Amino acid sequence: MRCLSDVGEFGFIDRISRLIPSSPYVIEGIGDDCAVLRVSDRIVLVTTDLCIENVHFRRDRVAASDIGWKAAAACISDIAAMGGAPLYCLVSLACPPSERTSYIEELYQGMLSAMSRFGTVIVGGDTTRSNDGISIDVIAIGEAIGNRFLRRRGAKVGDRIVVTGDLGSSAAGLHALINGVDDKELIRAHMYPNPRVLEGQWLCARSEVHAMMDISDGLCQDMGHLARASRLGIDLEPERLPVSPALARYCGEHGLDPLPLMLSGGEDYELVFAIDARSAEKILEDFHHEFRVQTTVVGTVTDAWTGVRIHGESPESIGFDHFKPKG
Amino acid sequence: MRCLSDVGEFGFIDRISRLIPSSPYVIEGIGDDCAVLRVSDRIVLVTTDLCIENVHFRRDRVAASDIGWKAAAACISDIAAMGGAPLYCLVSLACPPSERTSYIEELYQGMLSAMSRFGTVIVGGDTTRSNDGISIDVIAIGEAIGNRFLRRRGAKVGDRIVVTGDLGSSAAGLHALINGVDDKELIRAHMYPNPRVLEGQWLCARSEVHAMMDISDGLCQDMGHLARASRLGIDLEPERLPVSPALARYCGEHGLDPLPLMLSGGEDYELVFAIDARSAEKILEDFHHEFRVQTTVVGTVTDAWTGVRIHGESPESIGFDHFKPKG
Repeated sequence: MRCLSDVGEFGFIDRISRLIPSSPYVIEGIGDDCAVLRVSDRIVLVTTDLCIENVHFRRDRVAASDIGWKAAAACISDIAAMGGAPLYCLVSLACPPSERTSYIEELYQGMLSAMSRFGTVIVGGDTTRSNDGISIDVIAIGEAIGNRFLRRRGAKVGDRIVVTGDLGSSAAGLHALINGVDDKELIRAHMYPNPRVLEGQWLCARSEVHAMMDISDGLCQDMGHLARASRLGIDLEPERLPVSPALARYCGEHGLDPLPLMLSGGEDYELVFAIDARSAEKILEDFHHEFRVQTTVVGTVTDAWTGVRIHGESPESIGFDHFKPKG
Repeated sequence: MRCLSDVGEFGFIDRISRLIPSSPYVIEGIGDDCAVLRVSDRIVLVTTDLCIENVHFRRDRVAASDIGWKAAAACISDIAAMGGAPLYCLVSLACPPSERTSYIEELYQGMLSAMSRFGTVIVGGDTTRSNDGISIDVIAIGEAIGNRFLRRRGAKVGDRIVVTGDLGSSAAGLHALINGVDDKELIRAHMYPNPRVLEGQWLCARSEVHAMMDISDGLCQDMGHLARASRLGIDLEPERLPVSPALARYCGEHGLDPLPLMLSGGEDYELVFAIDARSAEKILEDFHHEFRVQTTVVGTVTDAWTGVRIHGESPESIGFDHFKPKG
């Protein structure tokens, strides 16, 4: 008798996907950051992101407004990951009837701050009681600007794999929270992700960018999704990744290796994309002029095999699978 | 220190609504069955419906496929309630990692059956582990046919209040489930609601129908929502409601009064609408010819006060508050 932890989150999604009939109006169904749908002459992106107490957050360690911000930002990041413009959100909330009204209002304030920051607003939702703990499901609806959007598939052999910003700070912030270390900068990186909405739109407008996603499960695991969707391989050179001063300091102080945090920590909500090798330098320079955000070429798309390699070797630890126990 | 059970679901929704800024592209935000949004030249309806283990369903009493059907049907009914055409669904699922894969597949099969029955399909979603029990959030996206849709507001003084089908069977089915009575017909009414999708579209195309919603909380409470949204009163004559043979039999066998089940049982997923008094007879006759579904004129819209009355009396004053909460 197989259970979900045997097949894992992605094995389970594969099984469910096989049950679902296809539809001509669905441009992209299950398996990418957003569902991509045709509505009249527009292309609409829809995504949903569940956030469960004691799975995704511990309320004793962070403020309600932080939990709200993160729940909304994580969902909006899926729209950013396809280069879209977020327009509307819905929120489904389950919580115990004994919950303080002021606590839940603060949670909504946090969500509304993130939504307002990225140009969207709550237009509906559902509320119900739960028997145990808070569950938040944020739904974001966006638009593909000029009907262009980027999927996980579409990478070409020889493309460079590029990451925006730096990785690992969110994972270090989680480590700090769990271990009671009061590292405000890293905890902020963990609780206040800033989806790369404008950056995603800018990249989506360049035809030299062939595939894109956001980093939520961790670079290594997410590159596995991109490689599989593109039916190609990706060879990473992780030593190229910059180690931010805060991450270097924290890892130094706590005897940690920053590399696993950067490769499989997850929840960075940075963008990772495959870009034509010949155009990469110029476009990344323009990108830096536009946003003052660093980018790092961290790998190459290959036709040697399907999957992720690190300098040609199979990676030992492949990120975080929600149904499989951590670590 | 006020908690959610002090302010109640609708008091809480009011408080949250006040936090939310308005947007010119949102035709209808929080407070109706669906959010109504403009996308290009089309009007899109979006709704979400949470279904929580041991709050909305008990898995020891019904099959997984039944739970799935009901979760999807309840959400699709919100599209029907505005006269829309359901197009796409997303499903967010939280469940314990120890859950049998086959059980969750059966749950999805149930959802997919309901969706297929009403012309929609799963296009995306999210899955995550929970620490305790299954939570299902179904999101439905629909279209307003010819950009027409019906809201809760819009009823006019003198309009007749009309209900499709019959009420109370779902509540009796729940009573049977809770009390271990093997009444297949009523349990089926509870677990297999059939959203009135085509009926809603048909009614929405008639300009004489001024306001509409589905019955999910129970006729009495839902008429309170419609009255409040329309800023008018509604006077109900509940003795007009037909008692279905199955309900009459069950109530007879168990010494129950059918009226509270019909007025406050809820989860009927029938439609209730306000229709111009002069046109009602002809339109209801046409409706019956089209769908072979009975309709009942159960009340009148008045300008005497805001709220629901039963023969001019407040429902509380004649003891209806006793029948309200189910658990």
